[in-house]
Amino acid sequence: MANRRASAPTRDLYAYWQVVSTRWRDNDIYGHVNNAVYYSYIDSVINGYMVEQEVLDPWGSEIIGIVVESHCQFFQSLRYPVLIDSGLRIEKLGTSSVLYEVGMFPQGEDRAAAVGGFTHVFVNRSNNRPVPIPGEVRAVLEKLQASRTER
Amino acid sequence: MANRRASAPTRDLYAYWQVVSTRWRDNDIYGHVNNAVYYSYIDSVINGYMVEQEVLDPWGSEIIGIVVESHCQFFQSLRYPVLIDSGLRIEKLGTSSVLYEVGMFPQGEDRAAAVGGFTHVFVNRSNNRPVPIPGEVRAVLEKLQASRTER
Amino acid sequence: MANRRASAPTRDLYAYWQVVSTRWRDNDIYGHVNNAVYYSYIDSVINGYMVEQEVLDPWGSEIIGIVVESHCQFFQSLRYPVLIDSGLRIEKLGTSSVLYEVGMFPQGEDRAAAVGGFTHVFVNRSNNRPVPIPGEVRAVLEKLQASRTER
Amino acid sequence: MANRRASAPTRDLYAYWQVVSTRWRDNDIYGHVNNAVYYSYIDSVINGYMVEQEVLDPWGSEIIGIVVESHCQFFQSLRYPVLIDSGLRIEKLGTSSVLYEVGMFPQGEDRAAAVGGFTHVFVNRSNNRPVPIPGEVRAVLEKLQASRTER
Repeated sequence: MANRRASAPTRDLYAYWQVVSTRWRDNDIYGHVNNAVYYSYIDSVINGYMVEQEVLDPWGSEIIGIVVESHCQFFQSLRYPVLIDSGLRIEKLGTSSVLYEVGMFPQGEDRAAAVGGFTHVFVNRSNNRPVPIPGEVRAVLEKLQASRTER
Repeated sequence: MANRRASAPTRDLYAYWQVVSTRWRDNDIYGHVNNAVYYSYIDSVINGYMVEQEVLDPWGSEIIGIVVESHCQFFQSLRYPVLIDSGLRIEKLGTSSVLYEVGMFPQGEDRAAAVGGFTHVFVNRSNNRPVPIPGEVRAVLEKLQASRTER
Repeated sequence: MANRRASAPTRDLYAYWQVVSTRWRDNDIYGHVNNAVYYSYIDSVINGYMVEQEVLDPWGSEIIGIVVESHCQFFQSLRYPVLIDSGLRIEKLGTSSVLYEVGMFPQGEDRAAAVGGFTHVFVNRSNNRPVPIPGEVRAVLEKLQASRTER
Repeated sequence: MANRRASAPTRDLYAYWQVVSTRWRDNDIYGHVNNAVYYSYIDSVINGYMVEQEVLDPWGSEIIGIVVESHCQFFQSLRYPVLIDSGLRIEKLGTSSVLYEVGMFPQGEDRAAAVGGFTHVFVNRSNNRPVPIPGEVRAVLEKLQASRTER
């Protein structure tokens, strides 16, 4: 599982970015984005990167990533209608699994309001059995590590 | 209630625009955006306009719009990770109620994939009783009508 | 499209029932169930009936129902943690389409808090082309009509 | 943060139970309940217990629990239209915070399909500042610990 962060991370950790628009419904009765909703942001960014890089076709890929654990820390509330800059990095890349981390930053702020992620185990879609991460997927994941290292 | 449209509307009808980012979770088991999710887009655009125009403070406004009916027509499937241009217009403006219409266009397309909306009745938040639309709210709603008429 | 109801319907109209548990997240910032969420209740009840009657396998059926329009009227707020009795009836059964109506009743109340529904057009999953409603599906839908007529 | 479990827990760990009905929309494009949705089950059960025990009024309570971290492990897929027995226990009770654990069991099964939870920090709603857990809330939380110890 991921290590817990002592404080809200900064933007320089993250290699790939997407803008997430919040929705009216994201705010719960306490007037801020409900904790479950952050996980919708997280898997949109992760899968979005994979689709964009053309190593995931959600409708047809035979090998897909299945979430076996997820986690999130909340440092500050977010509130619709804020726009969120979501940054992606790889925390750990194994043989058949990968641990992603996503930092969620309100536009214009340097510190993440929340940071979370999950572990994907890659499986064969037809029988749900783990497989080694395919080479082309691994190359795309390593790009995220590389871009982080360069900094 | 709104009239039913015979065919997918075009972009020129709409006066105010927002970009909505779709989410992984929006796609259901059939691989396209689930019908219920379009209503999340619709009220995000409508309330977003009101917040942006500073006539709605979701945390504090004493007079708020309550949805009494909603409806949507689906002409074409949308699929995450598409970005949606959402256009807003006013279909009917009454004394204490307003009927909005939102056209949802995949970026780069001229015809709406879906068109829907709802009727807001304005009420006093504390007792839920209908009130006439406040003057400053009405002015903001009329701007949408004006911009449409100009075309 | 469905006719608009002048007042909240009663329970005797509906032939098939399911209990829907509300969720914390269903309540929005105004403290009641968000309008979009009712559509999640509606398609859970409709598809649930079809799965239960064994005429729909969401993972494999070649012929599936696609939503072409949906609509809902709201008579009274619902609030988590209420349990909702959701009743289903058929409003109109055509050659390749069906219009469903779902009444949503807080447990213990005689009048629906909301009533809505949608139109399913049956299509071939592989090419998205409309097909006549298969005989076994039609038989299951007619059961709902019959049970209503008996009353 | 919570300890990671080596295997799926059994039902005897949990003290309070609720039945959660899944929804059509809970299934994502891979045909099983999306990872983010489990967190909607989790906070419905936790807050539901508090409301039922009359120590939380979501619309009015001055002292409320704010989620500062959440986490979940997934042992087995769930699929709509399954009903889920959700069990609640207290993992750790501090001065102003509590760590809950929720086990989610498909009806009829002995092993949890998923287990997750979150940490609530109790705050004053008006200024968001942490406060000691009020005595009546603590008593309600301790009931969960007691019932577990008895077994």
